[in-house]
Amino acid sequence: MLQISAANHNFHSSDLTFADENSLQKMARKCRGDILRMTTLAGCGHPGGAMSSVDLLITLYACARVNSTQPADMERDRIIVSHGHTSAGVYSVLGNFGFFPIDEAIAHFRQAGSPYEGHVEHGLPGVEWSSGNLGQGLSAGCGMAVASLVHDLRNHVFVLMGDGEQQKGQISEARRFAVKYGLTHLTCVVDLNQLQISGSIRHVMPQNIRANFESDGWRVLEIDGHNFQEIYRAFHEAVHDRDHCVAIISRTVMGKDVSFMENVCKWHGQALPADLFAQAIAELEQVNDLDRYRQLRHLGTEHLTIRPRPPFQPDIATGGSFLYTPDKLTDNRSAWGKALAEITRQNLERESATPIAVFDCDLTGSVKTDGFAEINPRNFFQSGVMEHHTAVAAGALSTQDVLVFWADFGVFGVDEVYNQLRINDINETNLKLVCTHLGVDVGEDGKTHHCIDYLGLLHNLYHFKTIIPADPNQTDRAVRWLMRQPGNIFLGMGRSKCTVITKPDGSPFFDEHYTFHYGKADILREGADISVITMGAMAHHAVNVADTLAAEGIGAGVYNFSCAKQMDLDTLSRACQTGLVITYEDHNVHTGLGTMVADLLCRHGLAVKLHKMGIQDYVTSGEPKDLLTAVGLDEKTLNLTIRRMIEQYAKSVKETSDLEKTVKLAKNI
Amino acid sequence: MLQISAANHNFHSSDLTFADENSLQKMARKCRGDILRMTTLAGCGHPGGAMSSVDLLITLYACARVNSTQPADMERDRIIVSHGHTSAGVYSVLGNFGFFPIDEAIAHFRQAGSPYEGHVEHGLPGVEWSSGNLGQGLSAGCGMAVASLVHDLRNHVFVLMGDGEQQKGQISEARRFAVKYGLTHLTCVVDLNQLQISGSIRHVMPQNIRANFESDGWRVLEIDGHNFQEIYRAFHEAVHDRDHCVAIISRTVMGKDVSFMENVCKWHGQALPADLFAQAIAELEQVNDLDRYRQLRHLGTEHLTIRPRPPFQPDIATGGSFLYTPDKLTDNRSAWGKALAEITRQNLERESATPIAVFDCDLTGSVKTDGFAEINPRNFFQSGVMEHHTAVAAGALSTQDVLVFWADFGVFGVDEVYNQLRINDINETNLKLVCTHLGVDVGEDGKTHHCIDYLGLLHNLYHFKTIIPADPNQTDRAVRWLMRQPGNIFLGMGRSKCTVITKPDGSPFFDEHYTFHYGKADILREGADISVITMGAMAHHAVNVADTLAAEGIGAGVYNFSCAKQMDLDTLSRACQTGLVITYEDHNVHTGLGTMVADLLCRHGLAVKLHKMGIQDYVTSGEPKDLLTAVGLDEKTLNLTIRRMIEQYAKSVKETSDLEKTVKLAKNI
Repeated sequence: MLQISAANHNFHSSDLTFADENSLQKMARKCRGDILRMTTLAGCGHPGGAMSSVDLLITLYACARVNSTQPADMERDRIIVSHGHTSAGVYSVLGNFGFFPIDEAIAHFRQAGSPYEGHVEHGLPGVEWSSGNLGQGLSAGCGMAVASLVHDLRNHVFVLMGDGEQQKGQISEARRFAVKYGLTHLTCVVDLNQLQISGSIRHVMPQNIRANFESDGWRVLEIDGHNFQEIYRAFHEAVHDRDHCVAIISRTVMGKDVSFMENVCKWHGQALPADLFAQAIAELEQVNDLDRYRQLRHLGTEHLTIRPRPPFQPDIATGGSFLYTPDKLTDNRSAWGKALAEITRQNLERESATPIAVFDCDLTGSVKTDGFAEINPRNFFQSGVMEHHTAVAAGALSTQDVLVFWADFGVFGVDEVYNQLRINDINETNLKLVCTHLGVDVGEDGKTHHCIDYLGLLHNLYHFKTIIPADPNQTDRAVRWLMRQPGNIFLGMGRSKCTVITKPDGSPFFDEHYTFHYGKADILREGADISVITMGAMAHHAVNVADTLAAEGIGAGVYNFSCAKQMDLDTLSRACQTGLVITYEDHNVHTGLGTMVADLLCRHGLAVKLHKMGIQDYVTSGEPKDLLTAVGLDEKTLNLTIRRMIEQYAKSVKETSDLEKTVKLAKNI
Repeated sequence: MLQISAANHNFHSSDLTFADENSLQKMARKCRGDILRMTTLAGCGHPGGAMSSVDLLITLYACARVNSTQPADMERDRIIVSHGHTSAGVYSVLGNFGFFPIDEAIAHFRQAGSPYEGHVEHGLPGVEWSSGNLGQGLSAGCGMAVASLVHDLRNHVFVLMGDGEQQKGQISEARRFAVKYGLTHLTCVVDLNQLQISGSIRHVMPQNIRANFESDGWRVLEIDGHNFQEIYRAFHEAVHDRDHCVAIISRTVMGKDVSFMENVCKWHGQALPADLFAQAIAELEQVNDLDRYRQLRHLGTEHLTIRPRPPFQPDIATGGSFLYTPDKLTDNRSAWGKALAEITRQNLERESATPIAVFDCDLTGSVKTDGFAEINPRNFFQSGVMEHHTAVAAGALSTQDVLVFWADFGVFGVDEVYNQLRINDINETNLKLVCTHLGVDVGEDGKTHHCIDYLGLLHNLYHFKTIIPADPNQTDRAVRWLMRQPGNIFLGMGRSKCTVITKPDGSPFFDEHYTFHYGKADILREGADISVITMGAMAHHAVNVADTLAAEGIGAGVYNFSCAKQMDLDTLSRACQTGLVITYEDHNVHTGLGTMVADLLCRHGLAVKLHKMGIQDYVTSGEPKDLLTAVGLDEKTLNLTIRRMIEQYAKSVKETSDLEKTVKLAKNI
């Protein structure tokens, strides 16, 4: 294994020793051979870029503060590879540096069930962030650099990126964020091999990368990315510059060191066939040992380990709760903001408390994070109108033992950044995403701002939990619950003030004895004739209607499913006993609560008559109450719908009951 | 109505005449009053930015080539307002310029059912693009500027933007695209009023807007955005500069011309209460006529018109079809590419043919648009790794009588740009979105690249059609069909080569007599015991299994629902007659075909035993066939599942049949 002299560790000395330079060169040759082994064995992959980036990677892993025996050490430097398709390069370096057995990486590259995936995945020691979709790595780096501020670490964060991906706008967002927050311990390296899939970057999309970085206030160094001394000196310069974020633009050669691969675009995303491999490995003066690896590959991947992130257990005191009384309207977002502020205050001086950080995208007052910003301004990150960056930065920070909230409007926090949330979910982040302004309850801002698809979108993300509380009291208790949870959790709210849900006796339903349990539905009203399944700000409308009907002797049960993604099957079965179910939601009727209920009913063979009330098309601006009326989600329409369903059902019940009687009769005979 | 002298029309003369300057100033005062009328009447809105932008808007609408009597004239200049929250400003100008009655706009601003929405919407004459979510306007402008190239128009495109939204990365993508394609007839104006919702832009997110534009090769002019002569001269300069894309940075004052509103951040997103309105309107030397408008507002919005976009009817000859024979494996994407190329060739010289344009994001070879690029390079737009921009530019172009295709991998064409697609859908675009690399069929590129949620995502977009053809023949025919359709259509495909689906006699199922009908399902195999509902690349696996089982006397029907969003209810009912239904898809099991089927079954009371086969969690890299096995979607597992379900059902059928006999007996008695 490669040993580097103390002088070059952590970029201490300003130059690379001659001996170290020699060792790195030797290692580079070995790694290039391994890149070819992996890709040819798998029959696919991206050898070209891996071979242009590998000298940068080797220098980094050799000289930065990383350690193969303690890959999760909190004080370590963080190295993020944004152009994840260079995975063969990353694995070759990590494997040869002892993070895992190199033979394993070669043999099982891109094999089903293997951690050595096509794009780098965090399930491997040494890999900090799963990438693949380009342009997100610098944002992840910002998140990890913020972790250094929050935890007061003295480490450095390096982000290695491709040149093609510089075209992604999200990178400019990350650059601005880094400068605003003085993340001078963040360095990025651009592998400028001048080629992307479709050819020269100058032809695909002309760009002045240097000017782009400088226009956002970064210092730019340019180097030969295959000259170890230059690489080292640039890193040294960057690490010791505490006044600037530094970008190192590294001129490299795609397919470097194999004559017929150099600067040939084709090898960006294609593996060498066996004959060319033989030729290439000979050029690299290595033995052609592919057969041995082929045999290893045949053993399969069952013995390999994919390491999940260590579990995150936030230590947060959430004592007490706030009881909202029915005499006053409160919006759920104020309840969230109040609980956040109160809990922040409780934990600010607690030594063992997990630090809390909050990201905002220019909507502090509306999403109610102003209380937090006042109490803990140091951990409040105002990201401006840069949601793509924020989603990733917040996600990355949440993997670093920080309890991270990002609050935004629904259309920005979910719709605009769906893919970033997906990549977060794949990265097993612990993001608490709080979205206000859901539904047509947003009102006058109109259809571009009506977030009526959040549930349908988040339903695609396997590990995201969703909570849509019914009133301020449930919101308060849900916030206290999620403060202590690992994983990705979405807390969703409308904009308007809403009534506190009460019991039939007029006291708060979610009272001082109530504790939030994820996945548990609430029976807000019992009713034997029909069941209304709802959530969020629609719950109090359903309760109002049920109470009106109850006075006329019609029993409409009201069920609050605040955790739509994990339905309470017991309560659902109970709701189904009426035989008539209405789902009632301020959400796209095709993808929301109603569809989730239908899915469950179908799968569990619960036969009922189901009627879905939801939004059928994009809606105009308007006052929320007018919009609810316009789309047929007002209380009057719910009332009428209930009556009509009961009437229609009465007929069919009569027929069924006639049949049942006949059956009974027949059986008796 | 304002009349401008001929010299200043279309920015002909280099200066504004004194008389015109005076008229514009008078108009500005009137418009500012109207902005306050609208917002105060509605009790909400964004007066501050509307008042800082309004002088820019007035100059534009007065002097550009736009005409209130012919708002849809093809030769017109296009004016796009990216910061759509300044709607009151836009409506005040359009109304006072005769695009619609100003009194109507004032009275019904932000009222439910009104076209005068909170953010500008294209349902109004003079509004080219619905905006609201920031950072997208310049991309839309690029799309419209491309239309000028495609149609060989001599018009100009103006995009007005806010300063806060400059933080969005997508804008940098649009800048690069504009320079690459020499869109020098595109001018953007940044309203630099220095304030965004949370305060000064310098505090929220420091940014050097000028340097950002210049770093991407734009020419930048800086002006006083309230000095009509300066505004005019800058536009004149920009319109006549045919060497550069020009950005005009306009220093303005939020809340301009009302003393207590100027530079006060609060009035960004808040309307004046009645008392302050009275004070403000007096300062503007206008009468307080709010009561009159209040009365008009009470009349409601039913008499108002929202104008849909004029229907797009592409004139494309799609004659002939290509028949793929079962002796050769072909991937659906090659079939799409071949059909596209062939049809392009057919229409290239046809005088009346609608022009076809194709956008690509650095994946030409993989998404098979290389044929088109060769035949019609002038209409092929290589957008690089800039998906957010591309989604919007392609969408905007598709509203300009061009048949627009954007081809990309699923995770980039859907996941990454979901919100851009949503805004396109709201804009009634006619985008043909072609995504290859769907499902775990993507294989070795791993979980970040497995697009297993496209259907679940697109299901949220009300007007998007989806087509997932089963084999190359159906792909060929679907492409020919969609070439002649308006609206947004998604065509989805896997990566792998797949078998041509055959009839039981071995001939192609989708043969020379087959025509694609949107919403019609295909009965690939009849079967009385169980029904398998599937789509796309899974169809041939289902057919294989059905054929194997048929040989053993088990009747498994195979139903191809290529149009999942518009289910063929007749065929579904028929499939349900077996009592046993399996949905079988290379897609997230929670949000795909299975869930859509469940939803329909539930709503239409079709009682069957449903089993959903799909993907339960993110999947690793690997060869597609290994991944299908790993997730239990291989043919063997389908075969076993069918057998197990039939066995289990046999028992319950027996019980049911006993009961039925009893009933029959009883009835006879």
